[in-house]
Amino acid sequence: MQTVPFRNPAERARLTGREARLACRSGQISGSTAGLAHGYVQGNLAVLPKDLATDFLLFAQRNPKPCPIVGVSAPGERRIPELGEDLDIATDVSGYRVWRHGEVVEERLEVADLWRDDLVAFVIGCSFSFEAAMVEDGLPLRHVEMGVRVPMYRTSIPCVPAGPFAGPMVVSMRPLTPAQAIRAVQITSRFPAVHGAPVHLGLPEQIGIRDLMRPDYGDPVEIRPDEIPVFWACGVTPQSVIAASKPDFAITHAPGAMLVTDRRNAEYAVL
Amino acid sequence: MQTVPFRNPAERARLTGREARLACRSGQISGSTAGLAHGYVQGNLAVLPKDLATDFLLFAQRNPKPCPIVGVSAPGERRIPELGEDLDIATDVSGYRVWRHGEVVEERLEVADLWRDDLVAFVIGCSFSFEAAMVEDGLPLRHVEMGVRVPMYRTSIPCVPAGPFAGPMVVSMRPLTPAQAIRAVQITSRFPAVHGAPVHLGLPEQIGIRDLMRPDYGDPVEIRPDEIPVFWACGVTPQSVIAASKPDFAITHAPGAMLVTDRRNAEYAVL
Repeated sequence: MQTVPFRNPAERARLTGREARLACRSGQISGSTAGLAHGYVQGNLAVLPKDLATDFLLFAQRNPKPCPIVGVSAPGERRIPELGEDLDIATDVSGYRVWRHGEVVEERLEVADLWRDDLVAFVIGCSFSFEAAMVEDGLPLRHVEMGVRVPMYRTSIPCVPAGPFAGPMVVSMRPLTPAQAIRAVQITSRFPAVHGAPVHLGLPEQIGIRDLMRPDYGDPVEIRPDEIPVFWACGVTPQSVIAASKPDFAITHAPGAMLVTDRRNAEYAVL
Repeated sequence: MQTVPFRNPAERARLTGREARLACRSGQISGSTAGLAHGYVQGNLAVLPKDLATDFLLFAQRNPKPCPIVGVSAPGERRIPELGEDLDIATDVSGYRVWRHGEVVEERLEVADLWRDDLVAFVIGCSFSFEAAMVEDGLPLRHVEMGVRVPMYRTSIPCVPAGPFAGPMVVSMRPLTPAQAIRAVQITSRFPAVHGAPVHLGLPEQIGIRDLMRPDYGDPVEIRPDEIPVFWACGVTPQSVIAASKPDFAITHAPGAMLVTDRRNAEYAVL
């Protein structure tokens, strides 16, 4: 995937959510949406056939921390009006993965020709929103400083199952000093719709993580002697749960290629 | 000090703030006020001559986490109307300490005959308020379970000095599992006027604490393998700072013998 214009980070940040989405639709932007449309909510995408959608909705309801749903389409509908004017879920994500029987069979820039009357699209909150709030408060994000993906780990914390959907919670990790960790709990508690407060800190072995330097997804990051690892529920959880349930057909966003919405991060702050 | 009636814990808890205060005034209650007047704010007491009071007020202003002032008397006044109807600061605390040149010279049940026209009384928020909120949420308090005083430590965190008042922050410690610690940050953040969120967690050596089993004040408590130590700024800080400044004359409450006010803990929740 290649980006043609909008290479300049400042220019990418200045776009509105709608401008970014239309640039993704037209192919002017593809791949990672990190740094795009500063202040606007981005979301993970999961598209499932209607017969699985009810169970998935129940799964999300039962596991709101890893699976905070910010928008759902009506069956067959490609629009989700509450997330964006003129939004087309089949064309506006900057990269898609097509799954058959639990395997990725294709990566694409749009999925309009694959759309079916029985598909339901779920948009799930993403850590970009709470990370923006952390950065505004002056808290460090080691993976951003190092220019790598956030480290993510499968834990021993089971999700509450629903129908075919079951599996462990996946968490992302950010190293912080104890005082920063306390502040990060306060800041991210304001955003329950985008994973909210951490689920764990300080003792990774307690949640089944043996080696912080070997994440299950993403990249390892430095943890300094004066820092503790702080863990947040991660939107990779629903993806791994969907993959494990091996539905006949599913569509997700490609890693890092989120849906950019018209909603502002600030709207999701409960206080 | 001896308690005559009001021995029954349920009876002590049911008292209003005013009833408890009047019982202290009449000598029916003395000594520890733990468990007294459920739901009402209790406070640490510090009484200083007017010439030191301005510096102390400045010290508190600069160090709000260990020194959250909830009420101040006008010079020479024994009433603090915002804290209680009919409150008399010279008789209503269940035990006083009289200090001369930084040393405790006397413990007493009232200090009316020592009152002077130049004295200013400071009432400082106390951890009983945030502990009540933690208990209501089902969080454990190990020192309460063990029936001992909370462990407190002098840290390497310096307070911001003001006039003669300077010294390290004293913290209290409560062991919690990581998930409980995250919840405790949320709950105590609601109460900035009574020490608020923790100041540290997980890495005691970073704040100059070498041995958690040897607190500088209070008693050691068990820390289980699945728990981390969580530290809150403590109202002992202003007392130790006052003692270190060796004022000619000062009055404080005796340890554990707080001023019971008419204000409710719930009033101090910012959200």
